[in-house]
Amino acid sequence: MFSSLKRFLIGRPLKSEELGEQKLSKTKALAILSSDALSSVAYGPEQILIVLVTISAAAFWYSIPIAVAVLVLLVALILSYRQIIYAYPHGGGAYVVSKENLGKNPGLIAGGSLLVDYILTVAVSVSAGTDAITSAFPVLHEHNVLIACVLVTFITILNLRGITESASILAYPVYLFVLALFILIGVGLFKIITGQVSPELHSPIGTPVAGISLFLLLRAFASGSSALTGVEAISNAIPNFKEPRPRNAARTLMAMGLLLAMLFTGIVFLAYYYGIVPKETETVVSQIAANTFGRNFMYFFIQGTTAMILVLAANTGYSAFPQLAYNLAKDKYVARMFTMRGDRLGYSNGIIFLGITSILLIILFKGQTEQLIPLYAVGVFIPFTLSQTGMLVKWIREKPAGWGLKLTINFVGAFISFLVMMTFFITKFAQVWPVLIFLPILVFIFHKIKKHYDSVGEQLRVYNQEPVLPVEGNVIIVPVAGITHVVENTLNYAKSLSVDQIFAVYVSFDREDEKRFEEKWKNWQPDIRLVTLHSYYRSVIQPLTKFIDTVEHKARESNYRVTVLIPQFIPKKNWHNVLHNQSSILIRTYLLYKRNVIVSTVPFHLKK
Amino acid sequence: MFSSLKRFLIGRPLKSEELGEQKLSKTKALAILSSDALSSVAYGPEQILIVLVTISAAAFWYSIPIAVAVLVLLVALILSYRQIIYAYPHGGGAYVVSKENLGKNPGLIAGGSLLVDYILTVAVSVSAGTDAITSAFPVLHEHNVLIACVLVTFITILNLRGITESASILAYPVYLFVLALFILIGVGLFKIITGQVSPELHSPIGTPVAGISLFLLLRAFASGSSALTGVEAISNAIPNFKEPRPRNAARTLMAMGLLLAMLFTGIVFLAYYYGIVPKETETVVSQIAANTFGRNFMYFFIQGTTAMILVLAANTGYSAFPQLAYNLAKDKYVARMFTMRGDRLGYSNGIIFLGITSILLIILFKGQTEQLIPLYAVGVFIPFTLSQTGMLVKWIREKPAGWGLKLTINFVGAFISFLVMMTFFITKFAQVWPVLIFLPILVFIFHKIKKHYDSVGEQLRVYNQEPVLPVEGNVIIVPVAGITHVVENTLNYAKSLSVDQIFAVYVSFDREDEKRFEEKWKNWQPDIRLVTLHSYYRSVIQPLTKFIDTVEHKARESNYRVTVLIPQFIPKKNWHNVLHNQSSILIRTYLLYKRNVIVSTVPFHLKK
Repeated sequence: MFSSLKRFLIGRPLKSEELGEQKLSKTKALAILSSDALSSVAYGPEQILIVLVTISAAAFWYSIPIAVAVLVLLVALILSYRQIIYAYPHGGGAYVVSKENLGKNPGLIAGGSLLVDYILTVAVSVSAGTDAITSAFPVLHEHNVLIACVLVTFITILNLRGITESASILAYPVYLFVLALFILIGVGLFKIITGQVSPELHSPIGTPVAGISLFLLLRAFASGSSALTGVEAISNAIPNFKEPRPRNAARTLMAMGLLLAMLFTGIVFLAYYYGIVPKETETVVSQIAANTFGRNFMYFFIQGTTAMILVLAANTGYSAFPQLAYNLAKDKYVARMFTMRGDRLGYSNGIIFLGITSILLIILFKGQTEQLIPLYAVGVFIPFTLSQTGMLVKWIREKPAGWGLKLTINFVGAFISFLVMMTFFITKFAQVWPVLIFLPILVFIFHKIKKHYDSVGEQLRVYNQEPVLPVEGNVIIVPVAGITHVVENTLNYAKSLSVDQIFAVYVSFDREDEKRFEEKWKNWQPDIRLVTLHSYYRSVIQPLTKFIDTVEHKARESNYRVTVLIPQFIPKKNWHNVLHNQSSILIRTYLLYKRNVIVSTVPFHLKK
Repeated sequence: MFSSLKRFLIGRPLKSEELGEQKLSKTKALAILSSDALSSVAYGPEQILIVLVTISAAAFWYSIPIAVAVLVLLVALILSYRQIIYAYPHGGGAYVVSKENLGKNPGLIAGGSLLVDYILTVAVSVSAGTDAITSAFPVLHEHNVLIACVLVTFITILNLRGITESASILAYPVYLFVLALFILIGVGLFKIITGQVSPELHSPIGTPVAGISLFLLLRAFASGSSALTGVEAISNAIPNFKEPRPRNAARTLMAMGLLLAMLFTGIVFLAYYYGIVPKETETVVSQIAANTFGRNFMYFFIQGTTAMILVLAANTGYSAFPQLAYNLAKDKYVARMFTMRGDRLGYSNGIIFLGITSILLIILFKGQTEQLIPLYAVGVFIPFTLSQTGMLVKWIREKPAGWGLKLTINFVGAFISFLVMMTFFITKFAQVWPVLIFLPILVFIFHKIKKHYDSVGEQLRVYNQEPVLPVEGNVIIVPVAGITHVVENTLNYAKSLSVDQIFAVYVSFDREDEKRFEEKWKNWQPDIRLVTLHSYYRSVIQPLTKFIDTVEHKARESNYRVTVLIPQFIPKKNWHNVLHNQSSILIRTYLLYKRNVIVSTVPFHLKK
């Protein structure tokens, strides 16, 4: 029943050879990997205005030079990541680049930072999308958390079905959003050019503003560059592209950069020209759309696609997180289960882990994850800075043809990223300090895990250690609960193994029963030695373990092995198990983990 | 850690021999077993008035003859149960009496009815008590459900500590409640006798009332007899008494009957004399107390002890449910786990089950369990009727000395109980119909369980079946995941068992890896046959099972046994398990339940 539900939700399992067919074309990749970056134009420009409005509406013209600075940063990042794609055609992004060029710890900082960031991406963007939906349908507002959790579950299932399938479904909303914004910007510009918009609405560029400071401008710049989160996703996901991977990935990246630049510039400019003031109750994009079209169909089209892209921004996390977790797991810094491909060839453990943790975050913050945004932004610029610096080091070390230009590009990228990161720390320390706590903890855990795997590998390796000693003999212990066919079956099996000694052990709770049992046993199995143990506290496991310890202690001296054979009858139907004491499972688990004995279950399958 | 928390909550485990010391003295038994019955005087009289008020306040004098009828019923029940106690000194109550005299199904109806009823007792009385508490402290009102659940948990833990211990703690509130009501009734009567209460407040007995009907009077009577729920508890719990059990139980029963009769009569009389009208917002007992004392210390003392006894009424369920479940489990009608004594010698599975189910009921009904009261009352009178009828049959069959009187007593008991039960069905069908659904379902389940246990017993019995065939030979299959010490350890063990054939099975996900592994194996373990299986779907379990099936099929023909040895390394620390694929557990469980093979885990304990 469970497995047919699974089939229904995620589809039939795919053969390993079908992996190639699961690769992404450029159009699909753009849709699936750029939703995070593109969706941020829905809130990035607004973030700039929110900072500037603290001075006065006259300061709004600064949004233009700030937008130019953000564009410079964008160009630098896109070019830098393009270089990374060609330099690391197997993918990797910040983690691999930092690790290989700067060393283990910078790599782990970048990796850990991104891992947490993708979880935040999912939680934050789905919450934001849910807010957009419930703003349109206020009756749903009280169910915000539930709706967000359902959406995350939906996206998780979609991703478990496999990336091509999710790409096919998700491509429409992404392209619709791009289309909607292009229409908005186009019509807006047309109205401005044809003079339908009063040029009185905004203060001209260059108007002197009292009280403006470098600090404030930097802060506005940092806020605006939160629109750039998500540009690293493509470089992480190169293995998902069709061949030739690096070229396809690089082109997709350029396309995304271009779209992002155009949309961002357009929105910033329209907001400035319309003289739009950020409001608590209405987003800047909504105001621009209302000014351009009035509240007609186009307005709702723009609002609807915006809500969708906010939810889908989560999907970028679903492509990047499992791949990053795989890279970390391959290097043994996280649990090995993240390296395994599921039925549909995705790294399903990573997908499920991401789904669960982001649902937990949403529940924990009761759907109000906006507080996490600064944390999330700073978590992006740490790996940006590290990977650009890594590339810098790489060029200096390797000095390939034309390395001067490459160096310059990455230097600019690294420098601006560092600047943005520091600006976050300086201007928003109250919100971003947790990064300074959890990143070191995360890195510590990575090292702990690595150390454990290394130590296990060392202990298991055959060639560099003395071989395991051969076994000299065997002792079998059979706990018996009565005189039944189950026990008989187990004893017959024990006899067939021709071991040195078989003990049947009976734990009794009262003395009379003990005597009666010994009598019966003598008649039934006279050739097998019965040991009766008295339990004062009605526990089977305690006296049994004590006995096993005694036997095991003696056996170890002569390199004998102790095997505990547990007789167990298996009912025909699963629900029957509820009716039988599951003490054998308890005994088995306890002995296996706590004692050095072989634990064997001898099943007796009931026929009725 | 878990076990020290358990120690802290329920105390050190007791030896089986200490069972005698856990028995109840009469005073403690009265406290622990009568809280349900005694607490019902807090609402029983009110139920009568609520029915009468639908006619007019003039009809209130009928509460006196109705109370007399309830008292007659009470006397009949007490005398009947006294006879049951002596006739069934090992305890049993309605289930045993009905089963032995009327047959299996009437017994199961009585037993099932009571089982459900005890769960309802706990849910209803704790909810009522919580309401009383939060009426006093309105800020707590929104946490009603939480408080009720905490109270149930508290009572559950108290009962897991053992009955004497809970009796010692619970005796005070019960006796304080009795004391409080005696003072109330005494002072009330004193005031009436000394003429301090106006005799104008009530209509005299015999006043003709328009619109009164037999139906209405029967309904009032049925409502009033809900005050008698809980009188059967003592006859169920005879095994908990000190020796001589039947005499002590009978005396406790008489004492309880006497107390109940006195309190009930007193409250009904005072309510009548004061002319008290039932109100939505204030209970009848509260009105009597306010009229008698004004709102001074005594008033709050009475209200406080009433709230406490309402919560503690739940405790009667905790004594009776596990005992009844034990009786049903002994007869194989419910799961055997209910027969086991826990660390503190109580039937802890029954106690825990009762706690969990009643918490679920409270959560399900959001703490508003009043709707369940009629269901609960009718669920008491079904077993009352059945057990009295059973006694009737017993006397007619056995005809002991003085059976005429015994017969009369039980006849009166059976007749009135039947009358009350029918009155419930006729006058409150809308609330009590679910009984007619769930009782047959429950009885069906009881039979299903019994049938299963009987069939298992039949299949396991040694003497009346052909013996299990001896084992002719053994085949061992070792799934291997690599060339490691864990595998080496397992292979050494396998070799030491002198079996006929050992297969090492390697499941590979890609062809190259397969070849490489075969090469390595040839050098490492040339004398053990390696079988490589290719998995298209990255599943280990499927190809492995297919191979095992082939081997097992051939082995069965010649009565060979197949043993699957699973190599498993056991990390030193528990948290390390998260880092390793737990596929061995999955394989073990799957093979054990789905295939007829012996599953053995060979541990390799890591040292670091």
